[in-house]
Amino acid sequence: MNGLVFERILGGVCAPTGFLAAGVACGVKGDGKLDLALVCSEKPASVAGVFTTNEMEAAPVKLSRERVTGGSARAVVVSSGNANAMTGEQGEKDARVMAASVEKTLGLSEGEALVASTGPIGKYLPMENVTAGIDQAVAELSVGGNTDAAKAIMTTDTYPKELAVEMEIGGKTVRVGAMVKGSGMICPDMATMICVITTDIWLESELMQVMLERAVEWSFNRISVDGDQSTNDTVLMLANGAALGTDYELEQEEKDAFFASLCWLTGNLSMALVKDGEGASKMLRVVVNGARSDAEAVLVAKAVATSNLVKCAFYGSLPNWGRVAAAAGTAGVGMDQSKLDITFGTFKVAEGGKPSEADEAELIHLLDRDEVEITLYLGEGEGSAYYVTCDLTPEYVEFNATEKS
Amino acid sequence: MNGLVFERILGGVCAPTGFLAAGVACGVKGDGKLDLALVCSEKPASVAGVFTTNEMEAAPVKLSRERVTGGSARAVVVSSGNANAMTGEQGEKDARVMAASVEKTLGLSEGEALVASTGPIGKYLPMENVTAGIDQAVAELSVGGNTDAAKAIMTTDTYPKELAVEMEIGGKTVRVGAMVKGSGMICPDMATMICVITTDIWLESELMQVMLERAVEWSFNRISVDGDQSTNDTVLMLANGAALGTDYELEQEEKDAFFASLCWLTGNLSMALVKDGEGASKMLRVVVNGARSDAEAVLVAKAVATSNLVKCAFYGSLPNWGRVAAAAGTAGVGMDQSKLDITFGTFKVAEGGKPSEADEAELIHLLDRDEVEITLYLGEGEGSAYYVTCDLTPEYVEFNATEKS
Repeated sequence: MNGLVFERILGGVCAPTGFLAAGVACGVKGDGKLDLALVCSEKPASVAGVFTTNEMEAAPVKLSRERVTGGSARAVVVSSGNANAMTGEQGEKDARVMAASVEKTLGLSEGEALVASTGPIGKYLPMENVTAGIDQAVAELSVGGNTDAAKAIMTTDTYPKELAVEMEIGGKTVRVGAMVKGSGMICPDMATMICVITTDIWLESELMQVMLERAVEWSFNRISVDGDQSTNDTVLMLANGAALGTDYELEQEEKDAFFASLCWLTGNLSMALVKDGEGASKMLRVVVNGARSDAEAVLVAKAVATSNLVKCAFYGSLPNWGRVAAAAGTAGVGMDQSKLDITFGTFKVAEGGKPSEADEAELIHLLDRDEVEITLYLGEGEGSAYYVTCDLTPEYVEFNATEKS
Repeated sequence: MNGLVFERILGGVCAPTGFLAAGVACGVKGDGKLDLALVCSEKPASVAGVFTTNEMEAAPVKLSRERVTGGSARAVVVSSGNANAMTGEQGEKDARVMAASVEKTLGLSEGEALVASTGPIGKYLPMENVTAGIDQAVAELSVGGNTDAAKAIMTTDTYPKELAVEMEIGGKTVRVGAMVKGSGMICPDMATMICVITTDIWLESELMQVMLERAVEWSFNRISVDGDQSTNDTVLMLANGAALGTDYELEQEEKDAFFASLCWLTGNLSMALVKDGEGASKMLRVVVNGARSDAEAVLVAKAVATSNLVKCAFYGSLPNWGRVAAAAGTAGVGMDQSKLDITFGTFKVAEGGKPSEADEAELIHLLDRDEVEITLYLGEGEGSAYYVTCDLTPEYVEFNATEKS
């Protein structure tokens, strides 16, 4: 096996050596489902994190954001069924108590536990349940606990989402694993998503932070379910060095290989979030080429991918490229409509800002698929970007009008 | 009757002296409904206009935007059922032919006719039908044609929208009338909306432009149905001076009274657009107080009013104020959550960024009404703004997934 090739393996966050996990039900959700996840490293680990930019950041986000700057951590505890957001000083205290309970039960130092929460906003956590759940989770920690943990972070997801890969570095097998949850309020930067990534390679926290930010930018920050951004988005990554030791210095080629595997993980998990988006029936990939810069391409791709009218059209398999053009025109990047080409799948539907001669029957057949690619060519330069979203369905509306998510 | 008091009257765009209108069916829509409106002034009129900021502006927008800078006009022709957008040079030629047909048949000079179109994007106008329709509309012009004209500009609106008021200025009765159409793709700046305003007062076009821009800013630019912005938004205003002559100089108090009546018209018509928004079941008025500036208040109000999750919650009468807080937190104005109060109707649901003790049963009763007011107090300064929107319903999605609007 070539050192630059990675292979998918089972095991999620427990695939890397020296990581344990558990998922328990402690009554936060109230329906008896798993609602508290714990992931921990047997050795001290370096840490990186990326968090919501929403100014109403939740109490656990505030705490974990502070702690990640310290560069090391041992455990991550996640509660689902309550976001502990908009809960004032009580909420901040509750987040600290969650972390302290983990530290005490596991015998860690203060600051070694990180916290995340997800669920409805504006309710206080039932702390007796949470601390009892933490005790139980610590008791149940195991190398086989990854899927229970992935289930315990779910809110409106319909299935647990975890992935892991392995590759050879320095003559040994190293691994990266991850779990993630969605599935509404998905829009950059990140939205209601929580992701925990583990690896048994060793990385300095500064380098890991750079890698993580870039991997998130190219994955979780390029997806949208509903254009809404959450107060609780959290991506945390722990690297414990159990595979090669903490002294092993990665060569550039090995760093690149590791980064590629990280991007593969976050990219695939972000696609899984969109496909499992609330009420989604199909996935839309919006590609923008020919922009003046990549940054302008992102703005255009986002404008198209977050347009309700575009998303409704694709739900109905309508070949209505005019809505795509109208959405692109709101991005404010200075477009010349006479240069705009729009392609649905392999069919060019607009050329030079005018209708083309696409066969509507074949087009509708294409639009009926589970995954549709929309490509815009702006004719202004070399910038390009993509954005992935799902269609907007009556099920999304019904879901969010009846569930208190 | 006091000169500063205005009264609502019938007659729409034909209420002011010296304006005629007609609405005919010429086959643009294909279902036999009225689809071509003509409004004309018997005398030369000064003109003002406000147009979409979408970079994919339609051909008629481009032509009318140019012509309004000339300061005078006599007629406005509007076709519905086809936006004449994304139609390249052919579309620009078609818009000029529409205007030229009106000018020729009415005996006007070149440049005196303005054009607007609304409907699906990316299709060429059936120009034989349009020119025949213009001939018919000219033949049918009358002082009673206002409602037919208001019907002829409709696309997905469920009823024609027109209003008129009168007041006393300089010892004589002066009038302002208007018609407008919506009802999807409604978001600033303006979206798929076309509005024609007439008055028999005389205003220099520069002053009228200032008044119109401000009136639009406080009405059509503060509403959202779906966050989508159209390629065809057009507000045109003609002032012919038939009531007082073109020599009458308005005093400041009279200007203020006139401006107040104009704002009343555009404000009420914008509310009508939201209430008749595609699939809308209730109207939401988002008020933001205590921002650092009015401009920041607008950003926060818009972030809340365009959140799909907020709109779904209100469709379902869910007392989910957390979604309101999360949406506000994305506005990027620098909010301190510990100062944030949120009120639904008369119930304070969050205080200082924390849950309050609102009675949930009474709250749900309040949320079941046709109109709900959401107030956010930011505690940062004196800035305030409002934004009006409707709920997001399964009917909106179904409508836009099946209609080729």
